[in-house]
This record gives sequence, structure tokens and C-alpha cells, in this order.
Amino acid sequence: MEKITSRNNEKIKAAVKLVASAEERRAQGLFVLEGARLCKDAFLSGVSMKTIFVTPDALKKYAAELDFLSGINAECFEITNEVAGKISDAATPQGIFCVCKTLDKKSNIDKIKHNGCAEPKKYIALDRIQIPGNLGAVCRTAEALGLDGVIVGGGCDIYNPKALRASMGALLRIPVFVADDLAAFVRDCTRSGMRSYAAVPDADALPVTKADFSGCSLCVVGNEGAGVSAAVAAACSQAITIPMAGRAESLNAAGAAAVIIWEMVR
Amino acid sequence: MEKITSRNNEKIKAAVKLVASAEERRAQGLFVLEGARLCKDAFLSGVSMKTIFVTPDALKKYAAELDFLSGINAECFEITNEVAGKISDAATPQGIFCVCKTLDKKSNIDKIKHNGCAEPKKYIALDRIQIPGNLGAVCRTAEALGLDGVIVGGGCDIYNPKALRASMGALLRIPVFVADDLAAFVRDCTRSGMRSYAAVPDADALPVTKADFSGCSLCVVGNEGAGVSAAVAAACSQAITIPMAGRAESLNAAGAAAVIIWEMVR
Repeated sequence: MEKITSRNNEKIKAAVKLVASAEERRAQGLFVLEGARLCKDAFLSGVSMKTIFVTPDALKKYAAELDFLSGINAECFEITNEVAGKISDAATPQGIFCVCKTLDKKSNIDKIKHNGCAEPKKYIALDRIQIPGNLGAVCRTAEALGLDGVIVGGGCDIYNPKALRASMGALLRIPVFVADDLAAFVRDCTRSGMRSYAAVPDADALPVTKADFSGCSLCVVGNEGAGVSAAVAAACSQAITIPMAGRAESLNAAGAAAVIIWEMVR
Repeated sequence: MEKITSRNNEKIKAAVKLVASAEERRAQGLFVLEGARLCKDAFLSGVSMKTIFVTPDALKKYAAELDFLSGINAECFEITNEVAGKISDAATPQGIFCVCKTLDKKSNIDKIKHNGCAEPKKYIALDRIQIPGNLGAVCRTAEALGLDGVIVGGGCDIYNPKALRASMGALLRIPVFVADDLAAFVRDCTRSGMRSYAAVPDADALPVTKADFSGCSLCVVGNEGAGVSAAVAAACSQAITIPMAGRAESLNAAGAAAVIIWEMVR
């Protein structure tokens, strides 16, 4: 395996840019996965890998998870712990990074709209969720409770390293759809007969316990500060709310999404 | 205000220790709050403050939140941004720190046991939750949904700076009880007539939707890796589970707690 010892190596600098910038990820069509378990999960999910950077320590420590490297069709480089620290945005770098090709999450979205509600599928949609940890947490919960997919409308991008880690790989395993124009998408869904709900902190809205999730349905959870945008809310068939006895501002986006996803499937 | 410019000042070194070590917090009976909003919330909640460290930048930027400093009975020091970086364990330090006295969360716990279930109070208990972000998230959800309190049995301590931040101050606002021996505590609760449930990932356990939370009740959520300990589970009146269509290992402690708290109050 070729060795890279300089933090200023061009390939390392390119990887650092991919970790730091959503724009760079979009422009290159590439993203970086960090961590043995996450890289193995991605490999098993069929994610296409271009470049691997790994430290000798990681190869030894994560031998079981990294066995997939032996047969992989990608360029592999051995790096030092110092170089690993440069690429990583984690508190404790594991020393294994895969530069992967982004997936097509946009054309897929038409499948939801044109499903025509033949099956009672259930989706959660996220309107400009900003905090990577929230995006990751919602995807974990959606996977655990068996939702049919997560629709991401702006905000934190799905290849954000912190979101990928917080999702424990769920972002790569569950159906994730990217909507460039969430309002237009939801409007199409509503017109096609899907029940579409906007989750709002408004005591006069329909309690989530009274919402009908028996058919094909989706529910939008909004941005951490601003909530669901007016345009997206207008595109939904109804506003729903989580009745709260306590301090409503305490319920964060991931907590609200957990309650709503649970109500959709319970 | 006296100025501290050295990272090696004894008062700064003492604060750094309190941020880093739960043992130090216990030994000194002190903990450190970081951030303008959190410090103001603590002041309003009546938390006793011993020492304040603040940068000139923070005083200007958070003038509204920090107005409480003018009347406070505590020693105040002006620090440099460099010293703030030394104390902080946040990614972006806000430059305001309060060294506070810990509260008595142990003697209080007898109130729960000896309440005799006169009122239908509802509690979530945490069995050795390790990740500060999970402890904080559970407290936020408990506050939002109006639970009567959170019982913390080992694991991450309630004065962990990351847990306090993740809770957005909920840890200081809601009733939090510390149980040194959670199994013994739950046993007493069960004997006193409280319904006590252990949340387990076991498809044969009672579905959470069938549990009876109408009276005085508590539910234990377990450690991220090991779940509810055998001793605590044995002390509960019944095991319950969240029925899942998806990948059960994806539901993390905070997500499971959100679903359970919701079921307790819905």
C-alpha cells in the first residue's frame, strides 16, 4: 500500500475539503465516510468507493470490520495518525476513511409521487433540518420503527460526516429522498391522494393522536428554529401537533420526529 | 473586575478539572456551567453560583442574557479568549462560565418512594446511561411532555457539561433524582404500589401500548450497550417493549425514551 505522510498531500487536501464542505461534495459527487463500522456498512450496502485512507493502527484494531478492503476495487493509501487527525472531524479519529460516490437520491423521489398510493407507505419529511445530529437521529428512529423512507428538503446535506455518524449508517441503509423543492413535492403528493401533515407547535392544530396514518401518508417536521415553512405547510393537507403538558420549546426536532414516527406506525 | 490572563492560574486550573472530571465535581460539590443562556437559566432557577469567568467579547455579545451578573453575589473574573478556550469543552466556546454548587438530588428521592402513590405521578428512570447527549435529550423530552421527573441511576453524572448543554438547561429545571442503588430504589417503589416497567428489546415482553400508565408509574430505560441490568429488571413489576417493524438496534436510548415518555403521557 502506498504511504502518505504529509498533511499537505493533494489527495489529503481534497478529502479534507469533502469533509468540510457540502458544496464541494455536490460539485465532486463524492463524500467521505469515517469509521470502521460505517465504512463496512457502506460497502455492504453497495456504496461505490473511490479511495481508502487507513492507518496501520486502524488496520490492526478493526481487522474484522476492515476485511472488506482486501477485495475492494479502490485505491488504498496508508496514512499516519497525524494525517488521520487532519482529515477527521470526529473527537477521536478511528483512522479509516473511504471517499465514496454520492448516490442518486433525486430521481428516486418520483417513485413516491407516482406510487399513486397503491400501498400504504409512510414517510417523514424534513424541512431544512440544520443540525447534523438531528438528521442522523431521525434516520435511526425511522429505520428502527420501520418507516418507508425519509424525505430531506434542504438544510443539512445527507453526506455531512456528523449526520452519517449520528445515523450509525442508517442514512445509507434506509430509503432517503432529496427534494430540491419540498413545497412543490408535497403539493404533488397531496394531489395524488396522499395524506400529508405538517407538524406545528400550535395547540389548535389536530392532535397527532387523531391523525389518520392508515393510508399512504407523510408528515413534515420543520427546521429547529423556524419550524415548517409557510409554503410547505400550505402544501400539506392538514396541520398536526403533539399535545404537550410541559414546556413545548424543549421538544427538539429529533424528539418530535420520534413521537410522530411512532404515531405513524403504532 | 479582576483579570485572569494565564491559562495556568490556579482558579482556571480548578475550573478545568471540574469540567473534565465527575469525581472532582463530587469531591468539591461544584460544577461548571458554560454558555450565556444556560448560566442565566441556572441563575433564574436559583442555582447558587460561586465564581464567574467571562470574556469582554461575551459581555458585549450576550449583554441581555448576562444582565443577571450585575446583582450577583459571586466572585467575577474577566478572562481572555485563550483562557476561555482552555476551560471550555464546547466546539465554539461562548466565553462565559459559572462555577455553581451542586444540588441535593439524593435525599429528595425519598419523596418519590414515600409519596405512597397519592397522586398519579410519572417518572422515567435511566439505568447507567453513558452518553451525555442521551441524558440531556431525555431530560428535554421529559420536560416538554410534562413528566414528573427523571431518576438517574449511575452512568453519566447530571453535572456533565455536555449533558447540561444537550438538555438546554432542562436538567436544572425539571425534578431530577439521583439513585445510588437503582435496583433497591425501584424495588421500594414497586412494593409501595407503583407500577414499574423495564424497557427491554424483547419481542415477547408486553407491548408499551398495552402498559398501564394511568396510576403512579415509572419506566426504566437502560444503558446504551447493555440495556437494563438484571437486578433492576427484577425489581420492576413488568418488562415492556416497543414493537418494531424495522431494525431494532437502530433505536437509541434517547429515541426509545421519547417513545416511552410519549406513551406514558398520551
